[in-house]
Amino acid sequence: MTELLSKITQLDSADIAKPIGFHADGQHVGLKHKSKDLGWIFSDVPAAVAGVFTTNQVQAAPIKLDKETIKDGLLQAIIVNSGNANAVTGKIGHQHAKTMQQTAADSLNIDPNLVAVASTGIIGQVLPIDKVVNGIHQLHIAGDSKAFAHAIMTTDTVEKSITVQSQIDGHTVTMSGVAKGSGMLHPNMATMLGFITTDVSISPILLQKALSEDVETSFNQITIDGDTSTNDTVLVMANGQAGHDEIITASSTYDHFKTMLHTVTTALSIGIASDGEGATKLLAVTVKNSESSLDARMVAKKVVGSSLVKTAMFGKDPNWGRIIAAIGASDVAVDPDIIDISLNTIPVMTDGAPTDFNQEAMTEALEQKKIAIDIDLHNGSASGQAWGSDLTYDYVKINALYST
Amino acid sequence: MTELLSKITQLDSADIAKPIGFHADGQHVGLKHKSKDLGWIFSDVPAAVAGVFTTNQVQAAPIKLDKETIKDGLLQAIIVNSGNANAVTGKIGHQHAKTMQQTAADSLNIDPNLVAVASTGIIGQVLPIDKVVNGIHQLHIAGDSKAFAHAIMTTDTVEKSITVQSQIDGHTVTMSGVAKGSGMLHPNMATMLGFITTDVSISPILLQKALSEDVETSFNQITIDGDTSTNDTVLVMANGQAGHDEIITASSTYDHFKTMLHTVTTALSIGIASDGEGATKLLAVTVKNSESSLDARMVAKKVVGSSLVKTAMFGKDPNWGRIIAAIGASDVAVDPDIIDISLNTIPVMTDGAPTDFNQEAMTEALEQKKIAIDIDLHNGSASGQAWGSDLTYDYVKINALYST
Repeated sequence: MTELLSKITQLDSADIAKPIGFHADGQHVGLKHKSKDLGWIFSDVPAAVAGVFTTNQVQAAPIKLDKETIKDGLLQAIIVNSGNANAVTGKIGHQHAKTMQQTAADSLNIDPNLVAVASTGIIGQVLPIDKVVNGIHQLHIAGDSKAFAHAIMTTDTVEKSITVQSQIDGHTVTMSGVAKGSGMLHPNMATMLGFITTDVSISPILLQKALSEDVETSFNQITIDGDTSTNDTVLVMANGQAGHDEIITASSTYDHFKTMLHTVTTALSIGIASDGEGATKLLAVTVKNSESSLDARMVAKKVVGSSLVKTAMFGKDPNWGRIIAAIGASDVAVDPDIIDISLNTIPVMTDGAPTDFNQEAMTEALEQKKIAIDIDLHNGSASGQAWGSDLTYDYVKINALYST
Repeated sequence: MTELLSKITQLDSADIAKPIGFHADGQHVGLKHKSKDLGWIFSDVPAAVAGVFTTNQVQAAPIKLDKETIKDGLLQAIIVNSGNANAVTGKIGHQHAKTMQQTAADSLNIDPNLVAVASTGIIGQVLPIDKVVNGIHQLHIAGDSKAFAHAIMTTDTVEKSITVQSQIDGHTVTMSGVAKGSGMLHPNMATMLGFITTDVSISPILLQKALSEDVETSFNQITIDGDTSTNDTVLVMANGQAGHDEIITASSTYDHFKTMLHTVTTALSIGIASDGEGATKLLAVTVKNSESSLDARMVAKKVVGSSLVKTAMFGKDPNWGRIIAAIGASDVAVDPDIIDISLNTIPVMTDGAPTDFNQEAMTEALEQKKIAIDIDLHNGSASGQAWGSDLTYDYVKINALYST
């Protein structure tokens, strides 16, 4: 038991290729002006794979291809470009996604059906496929694995990556994640990409179950501007190289794996929210004592997505009226007369009525880079969280004036 | 028939007291710094009344009171203040709303149950009821009726009002509307208030039916920032002084009345959207060839509410990828491969694929104060519209930095 539920440790240095048998690289190949714009992840052996994709009805070519590719539960490589989303590009876009897949497979000498493709960047412009094909030939298996996180960035200002370790059956297991969010070089959509590697051994079915459940409380609880991208993709590869017995049933080992996964996905989610386009602050909304965790998450997401709450936090304005109004506007039945709200632990509303607070302490609290908005619905025992960023001049600037 | 369906003419000068038997006034009573902040509308005789109110679960004290007040279908006066929303103010807030109602009724020498109350302004601060009571004593029955539209403004930069006339059974009938939108003096919520007066004679039941149906295609299709206020109110008073027979069945006369009402509500809706906080442009989205008009309205509202579309229009960026992505993210089933999109009549997407357009013509088109975004779903024969504004630096400024 102690071994199964061993501590999860975050390493000081994150590396997507840290789990046994993984490699990665990133290069500048000319899709963006200067920075790295093409990268891959490769596993020595085919890995169990799970994926979740955008719910937008407009889906980029790579999304459609990946859904087919991962159907059999195995994947050995992921090829990713930034600078162009290959979305709304018609039939030629699908051909380009397949060309990317085939070229990477040839370079790695593996079956194309073991290669997933992801793109992020501007919508509606044909992918410069020659640059991508030439670029793939510049990628190395034993490349600079830390360059991968940069190759997938667009308007992101910082890399989002994490590596954690734990023990399963006496074997050290490692899990790494890399994500990008927040926008595009030619700003277009707040596309979210997340790639997770691990040497844990787990069946594809359980891996998909774990990921599908997890995103409900992690990536799906981020909101930057309420828009849903055509390209959102999260892929997890588990290559089983850590050496323990394969997780094939919903056991305590499986639960431990889910906790590891959640540690990684939550860290990446918070990283994406903190680096929202133009953001100066992370907003972390926690709703407790709700009838269900789904209710709690819905209320939290409504609050963190409110433009009026987001601008108030940018302005360091403890304007809790906007928070209670956002709660009331959610699709969850609430009783406004018994709700408590606090901002960075300072109560502003108690039992549905204004609470006097010390203005100086509040001003100081709202200077913080992270604002915790805590809401007690007094309506049950479930809880949930959501993360977002403030709405700033720079958000408008990035999305209005860096015009195509 | 020609008489029943006579032309609807908009008068050059709008006046909420233009219909026979109506009066209005507005004064500065000290709730706001300088500008008018209290007003009323009064009918010589009790009028049929209809109302629609915010769907937010957090409802300001006046909303709760008005719902009771209009239950019997009759109303003779409306008293409105700006500068304070009397929302989330606990039991004292309800007392204050009743005091407002009673004081106005006493001044006008009518039953308090014939007086509706509306408030707009900051949430969570106790209404300075003494100022309101004193202020009511400064209002006159034969006052400055054009001052009413100013007395209900908050961050509105222009008055929104309209007066139309038509004929019913050989009698001239008049309808006027006044609205405010876009935000608050201490910005807090984009509260929308709308008041409509008419001397048409119509039963309260039909009046409510007409209003409830109409708002679905008018006021409910405006979105400034996606937040729903605690105070949104639309009230229509029809005092029957024009002299024609009362409209008591769904006849062609009733249809004509609905057309008049829609002319007024649409003009006010477009006025509110054009004057959205910080707006430089009106965005008018029209969706056609949809399976149902509800679908069309849902798609239109999703597009006009997208932060990315709104910032693109501010930046004069023909970034139609954001428009198709917003369409795809709506809850309406669409086929992205057959959709057409145009911006101020210039096609940007045809049959789901990019359309080449003249950059110069597009730049000129996007300089306009009104941007028509036309979307053809090729999926039916219904249509719908929605209105909003662009998302600008000034929106952020108004909502972040004019801090309480």
